[in-house]
Amino acid sequence: MVSRPTFDDVCAAHDRIRPVVHRTPVMTCATLDEMAGHRLFFKCEQLQRVGAFKFRGASNVVLGLTDDEASRGVCTHSSGNHAQALARAARERGIPAWIVMPTSAPAVKRAAVEGYGATIVDCVPTLEARESTAAEVLDQTGALFVHPYDDDRIIAGQATAAKELIEDVPDLDVVMAPIGGGGLMSGSCISTAAMLPEAILFGAEPEGADDAARSLASGKLIPQTSPDTICDGLLTSLSERTWSILRDHLTAIVTVGDDAVRAAQQLLLERAKLWVEPSSATVLAAVLKETSAVPQGSRIGLILSGGNAEMPRA
Amino acid sequence: MVSRPTFDDVCAAHDRIRPVVHRTPVMTCATLDEMAGHRLFFKCEQLQRVGAFKFRGASNVVLGLTDDEASRGVCTHSSGNHAQALARAARERGIPAWIVMPTSAPAVKRAAVEGYGATIVDCVPTLEARESTAAEVLDQTGALFVHPYDDDRIIAGQATAAKELIEDVPDLDVVMAPIGGGGLMSGSCISTAAMLPEAILFGAEPEGADDAARSLASGKLIPQTSPDTICDGLLTSLSERTWSILRDHLTAIVTVGDDAVRAAQQLLLERAKLWVEPSSATVLAAVLKETSAVPQGSRIGLILSGGNAEMPRA
Repeated sequence: MVSRPTFDDVCAAHDRIRPVVHRTPVMTCATLDEMAGHRLFFKCEQLQRVGAFKFRGASNVVLGLTDDEASRGVCTHSSGNHAQALARAARERGIPAWIVMPTSAPAVKRAAVEGYGATIVDCVPTLEARESTAAEVLDQTGALFVHPYDDDRIIAGQATAAKELIEDVPDLDVVMAPIGGGGLMSGSCISTAAMLPEAILFGAEPEGADDAARSLASGKLIPQTSPDTICDGLLTSLSERTWSILRDHLTAIVTVGDDAVRAAQQLLLERAKLWVEPSSATVLAAVLKETSAVPQGSRIGLILSGGNAEMPRA
Repeated sequence: MVSRPTFDDVCAAHDRIRPVVHRTPVMTCATLDEMAGHRLFFKCEQLQRVGAFKFRGASNVVLGLTDDEASRGVCTHSSGNHAQALARAARERGIPAWIVMPTSAPAVKRAAVEGYGATIVDCVPTLEARESTAAEVLDQTGALFVHPYDDDRIIAGQATAAKELIEDVPDLDVVMAPIGGGGLMSGSCISTAAMLPEAILFGAEPEGADDAARSLASGKLIPQTSPDTICDGLLTSLSERTWSILRDHLTAIVTVGDDAVRAAQQLLLERAKLWVEPSSATVLAAVLKETSAVPQGSRIGLILSGGNAEMPRA
């Protein structure tokens, strides 16, 4: 039995990170409401610092370290939003960060991490190389490894997004988030179950990385192999920790194709002026696909997870 | 001597429109702060309903009509955000709206206005044709003409954006807005002078439509002829009404070239995940051009006016 954070842990995380995170706005759009047949409340984590909710969890870990622990620095292997989030959280505390990154990572992502003052450690682009390179870094530096989602402190940090959403919109019928490794969704489950026990929890997942949907259908954790989707934030597999939380709380997972994700991303930009990455657009695509899964006119909170997509030229 | 709205009018407008407008968020971005050497607070009116601050003024007019006045409907000539705003405000009250629009207006703008249930009245694309066609509509329908900015009720409505900004960030040193016809800027002057009498007021204007800057430099109203800029929301000339307010309150107007506007628009998207139209980006371009016009570390409120630009393909 793996551990899981409690709502008290979430509240403690919120108190810890409140001075450094943005309290992101909750936006509505009458046109999208009409299309969905529901009232939609978008929690705008793409407007979070570093452009994604990941800054919440990373800050909770970094700010929760003792001075002695912190002085050793932190390390992770990632080329995504967690890498930027950890690098930035470390800089805020003035401690070193080592980010193990495959040589295949886009230059813009390397530049972002370096811009936050972290040290990039190159490795070849395989999971084995990432893990063995990270192990070498930990060995040489004594840094603490910070997993992107398989960590109670990370989950408690991510849970503060749903907590703020429910504080701002206290009568939601449904709370919905994208599922990759499950950190955001499992955190959303913990906050929602504590604050709105009657609310329904839905996940959104790309068809090309639907390990959580298949796990929920079969009742046991099925890892993701060879994901294939434009939702580059949702490629990873659940861990036992996040799976055990999702299994206990989720009513359903809606899977959506990449075309529907692209259309939802465009709708958010054109109709709501919100620029998000494809992973974030899964939640709107899911609501527009399954409009009758809940009674018409339901009040649905959707967490937009991030905005770090390749930029259109303005 | 033309009339001008008082801050009491602004407060009354705010009470009137509060149920129908979004209280838009104020966002910050540490990276842009570093670039500017100041603390920047972006009032996100691109996230306002219809995608622009114009919905504030239009709603103030429409909601302020008596039932008898309202039953006759409203009319304007515009192909821009004011047309959409007036159409939508009219629909909310359930009254007719006639929008005189040149046949050259983009199909997407016509579709937006029609989508809000207004009647489009075609005219040839000259100011004379717009005005004569509007006069015919007024004559035939008895509708009330609603000017996009030369109207105390419109200015009082637009002034509520700066009022909310200052309520949220009560210790600003500078308030800044783009200048087209001057409705948003003159409203911002009235709210700021009443709420933060020590604050400095700056305008931002494109070099290719710099009638306000030339007017301020010469001390008398100089109309805009043949504007040439990508800032399609800022092509119009000041009126005596808006000019008289700007003249009394503005410290300076910073003019910016279209290249600087494009760069600022891209920065807002890439670094702050905020998608705005070029007219809005003038304020950031101005701050980045004139970083030393105010002491380093000044707290600057910038009103992002709208987000209705041609959309990049996500």
